[in-house]
Amino acid sequence: MPISDDSTTLAQLRNEVQQFVDERDWSQFHNPKDLSISLSIEAAELLEEFQWLNQEEVDQVRRRPEHLARVTSELADVLIYGLSLANALDLDVADAVGMKLDASALKYPAERYRGRFRLDP
Amino acid sequence: MPISDDSTTLAQLRNEVQQFVDERDWSQFHNPKDLSISLSIEAAELLEEFQWLNQEEVDQVRRRPEHLARVTSELADVLIYGLSLANALDLDVADAVGMKLDASALKYPAERYRGRFRLDP
Amino acid sequence: MPISDDSTTLAQLRNEVQQFVDERDWSQFHNPKDLSISLSIEAAELLEEFQWLNQEEVDQVRRRPEHLARVTSELADVLIYGLSLANALDLDVADAVGMKLDASALKYPAERYRGRFRLDP
Amino acid sequence: MPISDDSTTLAQLRNEVQQFVDERDWSQFHNPKDLSISLSIEAAELLEEFQWLNQEEVDQVRRRPEHLARVTSELADVLIYGLSLANALDLDVADAVGMKLDASALKYPAERYRGRFRLDP
Repeated sequence: MPISDDSTTLAQLRNEVQQFVDERDWSQFHNPKDLSISLSIEAAELLEEFQWLNQEEVDQVRRRPEHLARVTSELADVLIYGLSLANALDLDVADAVGMKLDASALKYPAERYRGRFRLDP
Repeated sequence: MPISDDSTTLAQLRNEVQQFVDERDWSQFHNPKDLSISLSIEAAELLEEFQWLNQEEVDQVRRRPEHLARVTSELADVLIYGLSLANALDLDVADAVGMKLDASALKYPAERYRGRFRLDP
Repeated sequence: MPISDDSTTLAQLRNEVQQFVDERDWSQFHNPKDLSISLSIEAAELLEEFQWLNQEEVDQVRRRPEHLARVTSELADVLIYGLSLANALDLDVADAVGMKLDASALKYPAERYRGRFRLDP
Repeated sequence: MPISDDSTTLAQLRNEVQQFVDERDWSQFHNPKDLSISLSIEAAELLEEFQWLNQEEVDQVRRRPEHLARVTSELADVLIYGLSLANALDLDVADAVGMKLDASALKYPAERYRGRFRLDP
């Protein structure tokens, strides 16, 4: 199933995830606590891809196809659990992200935080 | 900006995130290692919403609007960092999720794993 | 090297960890950020041992030697990085734990929090 | 209670933690799954102390008393949950760490891994 970010809505991607879950009758396991545990574990596996790397090595990741493929795969796991949680709790992901960006825009006014995310003296 | 999963593509949502980052000139901080650290921290904050809850309390979350709003907010943080990572490394999220679901479908054939995710004796 | 909690001081255990690190000249990698990343990753691997388990399965872990051995091994990894961090920053672990317990005792007076950790209405 | 790593055994420190738990009758909550969740959350809070820091800022942490105090406090939380898990499952921490170091010594022979932890070509 070749899909792309340009042509796929959040609802369609969530539906792909839900279909996978439904085909295995796994909704019974998908309570929000266990989904959050799994998301946290996958986030750590993603982080593991950068464990011990110095800045130079981090910069090279985008030019190393095999490493990039592993990162992509771990990010997919994180997102699948994130979308599963949205499915389990019937949350609107785009709305949640939009609302959070709006709130963050108030917390971090662009003019004051340009080029920095702390207001150190 | 009222947006919804039905009408928003992944590309559009990624663009919202990128615009927020660009307005603050924060791309310089968005290397994949630090983004993965932040994603991991936000995943833990999401998990914290379920810390110590027993099964009954977990089941009640969907019926408690304030708790649900906190969960939604933490999930948004996770997804924002996930989309930021996709932006930083130029990954296609929908393709990555689709590929991972395809791979998982081979690893967990629906007929053998229906209702269980381990093949215990 | 057979050692036990009854006969081993924190300083002695820290010294075992430091010796392992020194023999490999790994102190150069042991900055507190990367050690905290590693600790976080190992914490997730520990958590993975309980992923998807229901209450009944959790209760059985202590009676399943193989599972218990895996948990012990993952906990050891967490503690090794914790002690490595203490070594890298020259922190006193026992003092830190004692101080935190004292602070928590003020925050959670025993008589008010007996049998509960939230003061729900 | 002034205690120090030089004079405190693991058993004594575990006992301090157990006493705190017993005084609040919290053993009922201390199942290994929920303890591992809490440990993971505290590990993320420790990691948060280093979020977005570059190498130079990381190196300065040991010279900034307030930051160091926060790191110490978060490490204490991690260790308290680690020792609580050992208490809950009746594990010997010193033995577990010693065994893991022995196993790691076989996996990473000092002469081959001196100054590096990967055997890249």
